[in-house]
Amino acid sequence: MTRGRTTVDPDDGLTTKERRNRPLLLVYTGDGKGKTSAAVGTALRSWAQGWSVGVYQFVKSASWTTGEYQALTRLGELDGNVTFERMGTGCTWMRSAHGGEVSAEDAAKAAWAHVRQGIAEERHRFWLLDEFTYPMAWGWVDVDEVAATLRDRPGIQHVVITGRRCPQPILDLADLVTEMTKVKHPFDKGQKGQAGIEW
Amino acid sequence: MTRGRTTVDPDDGLTTKERRNRPLLLVYTGDGKGKTSAAVGTALRSWAQGWSVGVYQFVKSASWTTGEYQALTRLGELDGNVTFERMGTGCTWMRSAHGGEVSAEDAAKAAWAHVRQGIAEERHRFWLLDEFTYPMAWGWVDVDEVAATLRDRPGIQHVVITGRRCPQPILDLADLVTEMTKVKHPFDKGQKGQAGIEW
Repeated sequence: MTRGRTTVDPDDGLTTKERRNRPLLLVYTGDGKGKTSAAVGTALRSWAQGWSVGVYQFVKSASWTTGEYQALTRLGELDGNVTFERMGTGCTWMRSAHGGEVSAEDAAKAAWAHVRQGIAEERHRFWLLDEFTYPMAWGWVDVDEVAATLRDRPGIQHVVITGRRCPQPILDLADLVTEMTKVKHPFDKGQKGQAGIEW
Repeated sequence: MTRGRTTVDPDDGLTTKERRNRPLLLVYTGDGKGKTSAAVGTALRSWAQGWSVGVYQFVKSASWTTGEYQALTRLGELDGNVTFERMGTGCTWMRSAHGGEVSAEDAAKAAWAHVRQGIAEERHRFWLLDEFTYPMAWGWVDVDEVAATLRDRPGIQHVVITGRRCPQPILDLADLVTEMTKVKHPFDKGQKGQAGIEW
């Protein structure tokens, strides 16, 4: 990615400085590998700016320690600006909030309520809502409510959403959408995921 | 990305363990945003495994300090396993190797010779060759030589190549290819790149 060259003159009445500080909504979707990786790579840029970075994983199990979790956690220890919450059914936060086992649907609803509250409080300047498309696509979280919450979010809060099958209202609202298309994948040849690459 | 579920029974005579330790070649290509970010996110996973990680940027200027550079450098300081070399025309390494100014083409040729030597020496377990497609697409670096070098690389060295217009011989050789397709981008609306997101 080269530093922003634009071919269109903006017609939005904003100054360049205002335009450079607009809150962005980014979506990484599609069937190809690289959605979460790309979002995490983007998170590093926000971390390097000294911003508060919040990573919220909606589906992945808390028992699965990923390299991005380890790396972002270490970076957060260096400057205290990283929150990384894994909010699948297995996670401690979810269990204690519900006093025990919780269904995947209830976990997703609770996770979204938690994030929505944080957005209202402007808890982070950069939000990564990992695999958040799924609870929306499955109807567990109301898409229109998510869209309204994101559209009306206060202050400057960048939000990145990853996952397949991103609902149209979110795509419509997004400033940037990249579709990751699978051209070739080792799984197709029976190759399993590998540590250090897939997690 | 979920932990590898495969739908095909492999027919390669390898044990599961051997298959889990196969050197992979990954390509992130296409016009959409997220190629470098995804590759950097993948690098975090290799870092978390304790592997030697080498990031070689072929086109980006050394004078441009990116968030991923800062983050990976800090992680490298924590455990000493990260090399991050920016090998565009502006970089110190390139200038001292050439005794002064160097053309973009010569810089790319020298960068590839440097990487090729490192691959022969098994310098890293994870290589990120960022924007390496361009010197190949521009004819500055011989694609067939690159393909042969990668095909015959010794040991277990994972390689990730990013950039648009990836040459076919590299795609043919790759284990995984994701095409990032631009669905929507702020540049189209005259929005310039923003710190913390684009770099």
